[in-house]
Amino acid sequence: MNGVTDGPDPWRLTWGPDDLQQLAVTESLFTLANGHIGLRGSLDEGEPRVRSGTYINGFYEERPLPHPEAGYGFPESGQTVVNITDGKLVRLIVGDSPFDTRYGTVDRHERFLDLRTGILHRTTDWTSPVGARVRVTSQRLVSFAYRTIAAIKYEVTPLDGDLYLAIQSDLIANEPPDGGTGDPREAAVLECPLQSELGERAVDHAVLVHRTPKSGLRVAAGMRHVTAGPEQISRQLTVDPDLARLTVAASVRRGESLHLVKLLAYGWSHRRSAPALRDQVDGALTVAGLIGWDGLATRQREFLDDFWRAADVEIDGDAELQQAVRVSTFHVLQAGSGSQRDAIPAKGLTGPGYDGHAFWDTETFVLPVLTYTFPQAARGALIWRHRTLPMARARAEVLGLRGAAFAWRTINGQECSGYWPAGTAAFHLAAAIADATARYVAATQDEEFERRYGAELLVETARLWMSLGHFTRSGDFRIHGVTGPDEYTAVVDDNVYTNLMAQRNLREAVQACGRCVETAARLGVTDHEITEWRAAADAVYFPYDRALGVHPQSEGFTRHGEWDFERTPPEKYPLLLHYPYFELYRKQVVKQADLVLALHLRGDAFTADEKVRDFAYYEARTVRDSSLSAATQAIIAAEVGHLQLAHDYWAETAFSDLHNLYGNVNSGLHIAALAGSWMVAVAGFGGMRDHDGELTFAPRLPPMLSRLSFCMRFAGRVVDVEIRRVADRPSGDPASGDRARGGSDDPPAIVAGEQTVTYRLLEGEPLQTHHHGEQVLLRTGEPVTLDVPALGRVAPVTQPPGRQPAGRR
Amino acid sequence: MNGVTDGPDPWRLTWGPDDLQQLAVTESLFTLANGHIGLRGSLDEGEPRVRSGTYINGFYEERPLPHPEAGYGFPESGQTVVNITDGKLVRLIVGDSPFDTRYGTVDRHERFLDLRTGILHRTTDWTSPVGARVRVTSQRLVSFAYRTIAAIKYEVTPLDGDLYLAIQSDLIANEPPDGGTGDPREAAVLECPLQSELGERAVDHAVLVHRTPKSGLRVAAGMRHVTAGPEQISRQLTVDPDLARLTVAASVRRGESLHLVKLLAYGWSHRRSAPALRDQVDGALTVAGLIGWDGLATRQREFLDDFWRAADVEIDGDAELQQAVRVSTFHVLQAGSGSQRDAIPAKGLTGPGYDGHAFWDTETFVLPVLTYTFPQAARGALIWRHRTLPMARARAEVLGLRGAAFAWRTINGQECSGYWPAGTAAFHLAAAIADATARYVAATQDEEFERRYGAELLVETARLWMSLGHFTRSGDFRIHGVTGPDEYTAVVDDNVYTNLMAQRNLREAVQACGRCVETAARLGVTDHEITEWRAAADAVYFPYDRALGVHPQSEGFTRHGEWDFERTPPEKYPLLLHYPYFELYRKQVVKQADLVLALHLRGDAFTADEKVRDFAYYEARTVRDSSLSAATQAIIAAEVGHLQLAHDYWAETAFSDLHNLYGNVNSGLHIAALAGSWMVAVAGFGGMRDHDGELTFAPRLPPMLSRLSFCMRFAGRVVDVEIRRVADRPSGDPASGDRARGGSDDPPAIVAGEQTVTYRLLEGEPLQTHHHGEQVLLRTGEPVTLDVPALGRVAPVTQPPGRQPAGRR
Repeated sequence: MNGVTDGPDPWRLTWGPDDLQQLAVTESLFTLANGHIGLRGSLDEGEPRVRSGTYINGFYEERPLPHPEAGYGFPESGQTVVNITDGKLVRLIVGDSPFDTRYGTVDRHERFLDLRTGILHRTTDWTSPVGARVRVTSQRLVSFAYRTIAAIKYEVTPLDGDLYLAIQSDLIANEPPDGGTGDPREAAVLECPLQSELGERAVDHAVLVHRTPKSGLRVAAGMRHVTAGPEQISRQLTVDPDLARLTVAASVRRGESLHLVKLLAYGWSHRRSAPALRDQVDGALTVAGLIGWDGLATRQREFLDDFWRAADVEIDGDAELQQAVRVSTFHVLQAGSGSQRDAIPAKGLTGPGYDGHAFWDTETFVLPVLTYTFPQAARGALIWRHRTLPMARARAEVLGLRGAAFAWRTINGQECSGYWPAGTAAFHLAAAIADATARYVAATQDEEFERRYGAELLVETARLWMSLGHFTRSGDFRIHGVTGPDEYTAVVDDNVYTNLMAQRNLREAVQACGRCVETAARLGVTDHEITEWRAAADAVYFPYDRALGVHPQSEGFTRHGEWDFERTPPEKYPLLLHYPYFELYRKQVVKQADLVLALHLRGDAFTADEKVRDFAYYEARTVRDSSLSAATQAIIAAEVGHLQLAHDYWAETAFSDLHNLYGNVNSGLHIAALAGSWMVAVAGFGGMRDHDGELTFAPRLPPMLSRLSFCMRFAGRVVDVEIRRVADRPSGDPASGDRARGGSDDPPAIVAGEQTVTYRLLEGEPLQTHHHGEQVLLRTGEPVTLDVPALGRVAPVTQPPGRQPAGRR
Repeated sequence: MNGVTDGPDPWRLTWGPDDLQQLAVTESLFTLANGHIGLRGSLDEGEPRVRSGTYINGFYEERPLPHPEAGYGFPESGQTVVNITDGKLVRLIVGDSPFDTRYGTVDRHERFLDLRTGILHRTTDWTSPVGARVRVTSQRLVSFAYRTIAAIKYEVTPLDGDLYLAIQSDLIANEPPDGGTGDPREAAVLECPLQSELGERAVDHAVLVHRTPKSGLRVAAGMRHVTAGPEQISRQLTVDPDLARLTVAASVRRGESLHLVKLLAYGWSHRRSAPALRDQVDGALTVAGLIGWDGLATRQREFLDDFWRAADVEIDGDAELQQAVRVSTFHVLQAGSGSQRDAIPAKGLTGPGYDGHAFWDTETFVLPVLTYTFPQAARGALIWRHRTLPMARARAEVLGLRGAAFAWRTINGQECSGYWPAGTAAFHLAAAIADATARYVAATQDEEFERRYGAELLVETARLWMSLGHFTRSGDFRIHGVTGPDEYTAVVDDNVYTNLMAQRNLREAVQACGRCVETAARLGVTDHEITEWRAAADAVYFPYDRALGVHPQSEGFTRHGEWDFERTPPEKYPLLLHYPYFELYRKQVVKQADLVLALHLRGDAFTADEKVRDFAYYEARTVRDSSLSAATQAIIAAEVGHLQLAHDYWAETAFSDLHNLYGNVNSGLHIAALAGSWMVAVAGFGGMRDHDGELTFAPRLPPMLSRLSFCMRFAGRVVDVEIRRVADRPSGDPASGDRARGGSDDPPAIVAGEQTVTYRLLEGEPLQTHHHGEQVLLRTGEPVTLDVPALGRVAPVTQPPGRQPAGRR
């Protein structure tokens, strides 16, 4: 089914003929994007298709948010990503038959995405219903180097005899929407979202300018072509309000080909006039014409070489996972790379899921990966948050709070959440923004960013927490009535994750004000305020259940009724589609890592024993109905010694979309889950932590792997960590280890001397780090190799019946 | 402003000329209804008006309930009461001028509602713009005895000289909706909700039949007239799809009058055909014609005489309150009287507020009053709940629960709540239904009702609680994630009110199954089930805060942050219109009696000291943004000795609509608040309790009153209780007592011998009751007079700043 299953190429994602049956999956996975433009991986000829899609970051239409019962502060209008003018279309007529793989015969079909060149390749050999045979090849790229430009190289070759061929290269707006599934996570479908404002036709290019009626945003799309082939090629360019078309026709002899290079440029603005936008796109097309296809392809490769040099993960012992982790990392790059000051939506620019909104996933799961691999993208995404500060301050005021209340889900920064218990109340978003800010600053030492943007984000979120929390009579600082990451529990008191992240937020704000006194002064920060932040941080309360020896996810959680997993059949998952919130909220059932996420991001607040007990407790109650869970579970499983389980969860997060595990990949990729693929390698098996900006490692290999290496950027350095299995285990099958249910006679998980780690500083000043708690000084050209300490057997853990991850062996 | 303020007639609600400026208030207060038909108190001529309205119990149209983010189990369609065909209209033309008080001169205007006759009277002397003077008088009734019939007696008299007069008597459908205010508590306004199906015109009557397009309900409205006056009267009857009109014209001499009696009949059905409904209404009109105006008026008076005999409250010392309590009780009767198996909506049939839905208020606040004054109405309302059992069972199944989950808000029994935290989650409704059922059965000994309806309601609600609650490791039975009565707190654990009411529900179910073994068998009740109910009831947990010595309203409540009342200006009330739920939920701010309601309805579960402390604690945090609060606060204030405060709250509940305290009386009356007027007299100052079906009293007079008496029905008896002040207090001003802030030198609240109580059994078998804990046996003809025990001074209590009740002195 999936072309990757037999001997996958580690750098190429390939689908053969089954691509045509798997378009719901491949259209998303073959999306090309650069953080600014996104083109879904539709076939050149447009059909067959499941969902077409061309997106431009930040471009949306408004829609009403009707509430059956109004409430103060409920947002009344929402935003939906718009499928803008489609420039991908290149239709072909062979003789008098339209090239369409649903008719005639497909003799050969393959598409592959090359992760090193950033180019999507396609080859199809086709026999028309009347017997004419052609080969169609195409290459497509969305330029990382030139964010407004995309290009398609298209070639048709008659395979048997001379043929009349015609190519129609389109710009088309307002394509009828592809139907949704009724899943609440889908996007609102807008009919005809674009009003034509201007169409331009010149000798070699065409531009269409449209405008959204409600949000009033303008978008211009332009195309320009270079053709080659037979001497006689007829060309005709037409422009209608919603359709610009270049038709190229020729009689092509056997042995000749008809070539077309289509250059695309996009621009949008909420301020610039239609003529100004048209001219902008015209200009971009002229530049693209100068660079040409080959120039674009060369720059694409250079860009990616540079990226992979400090971002790649190498895995020996699991070839599928090797490929999946690279595919994942590539898509994370695509989601964020072009971001100068743009959001990174939950789906990137790969589909209309979640209405194209950005959530806390960006800061919590995506930005850490970008911070360590492509930090300018993390910077851009944080500047986008900073741009939304006026709206966040206004929202805080509406809510009777201080500081900034950022939108739970949004495109332009306005709150679009229609269900406040899992929207407005999820204030942990503020801490996620603060955490990502502090991490970015620590990992890049980007002082200019901190002064201009970062400190303000930290101050305004710290102010929010001060108005959200309160000191009790006993002197605790408590935060009540908020929703933590686990969406199967809402509006609770003292969510451990939230409280600990707020604590970090307050402390980071104190420190940032110490470094950026002018910014602090501009924001009116007072000494009293800083004293309060420090006092609140020191007094943050989080509950502990002494009887059970675990931390309740939030106050009272461990007293709640247990979910009846035995009577929950597989078809009732995800639970939110089959049970009311009411039932989910009051039971001990966890959608996604929450307390376990605290064990990762605030691991400094827990003892090793607490992590073991807490992980086991929540592991038995976490159903992973969210894609934002497996990676975190993998990271903590690895930390507490469940290395095989960590490997299983790693695969789950890496295969989220390749295996369509959530059944909705046609709405777009799960960018945060994919980001988890990199993070499990680095923070899970590499044991990388960065508490308080200090970089530490505690690497361990899972049983199946013989080697794992990864790179990351940190404070101007590039660090390479390589874990190797150097000795056979004394006895037994290493892979069976973790799952065995046995007594103390079980072999240990890792024997002393079995694994070594080599640290290499590839670039930058000497770096002080830690290997399993031991200080290590790294210098360029001086690799350091150290043993992985022995690891005893840990008590087995269980998942809810039927919710075990797929075993990886 | 309000005509009642100077020397109000204890049996008449009168408005003078200011009626015309106060139509927003008087249209609702002059509503005539019989539980089946409701006619708002519009002027005969239709205008000026604020909101016209003609309602028929159970008649609704469906409307979509759009959710900005869908969720499993969210209701997708709602119901809205329909303003049906208006038969109240009687327009008058004087010469060639339409009679309209906004033009010409109003020389005299008065309307009054006579609470003993049930007739609304109107007199207006008017000079037309061209100087013609007339007197218009009308009387209007909605028959208690004949539930489908209403009647208007209309009379015009020239005051100066001969005049041409024309009267247009209309039936009009689809009047343009009167605009809403945007308040979320308002009804959805439907445009043209009725489709004409049939119009009939006969010699003396007309019938219009309409149908709602979505809910598919049919309504027929008919009118029939008797005219008298000058010998020559021209009559013309026309029928169009949405308008039937009788026009009567005559030249009327000075000294003569033109008389019109208009008889109205209504019928509706979801099953019967249009011709069948037309014939039904034709028949009703024929009967009404036989009875005639005088017959209807006589039966109305007889009905009310019978009602007041066992329902009246007499108050010496507060004439306004005397009138207000009677007005209140009258409207409670109107809301429930005709109910054979109909809901009693929150607004009765007085307006479209809350979409015409019924809520828990009916069972909790209205049915107790009806149970003790007009029990057949309580029976009908409970049978209506029973009729909705199939929907409630289906809803429970959707929610993954057992038993019956009744609709939080509904007209036909389907859940219409669009905001589940204050809808679906408010499962205390189930206990309210059970409590009303048990009370009705205990107070009426209506065994046939219990067998056919009551036991099933108790069993199915008990089953609901068993699926809502769970036993913890420590053996407690806890109920998590539900919402109690206080709507400023939602989705909490172990709400004390809910848990205690569930406990009673379970116990009543056990007892009902013991009495109705056949019903229990039919419902498949097992011994095991009964054992479980008993075990759960015995193990019900409710939290207690030892440090504060009070009961938290729900687990953790007393740890929540305090609301900043000092910084909450008066214009920010009601808080729900100015603060988000998020903010309200996490703070110690209480919309309405919740724990205090538990002190009343489950007073048997608290010690006297606990009541004192709990009342004081919640009194300081309760803002009374709900009309469902003051009465309960009055009852517990009286019980714990704050007699003046109880009097103040009594006035607040009784004047809810007379003084338009909530600013929305034009949407209809607050029937439950009005029911509180009677209940404060009986359960507050009378100290009446009925725990486990045992009737007890603990009467006390507040300082201002010299006498208070009330009647009630109980188990086939009529009991009269009269409290008198028989001695002057030793010193000081009794009225200043409660509010004084002083030490132990303060005079006691009640001195021994100051007050006596006389108990009279007016009807029925001897009755064993209690006076302040002392057993009393009552027999007819043998009044028992007892002293009210002395009452010491209780520590003062406070309300949130600015939320003190208006003082009553």
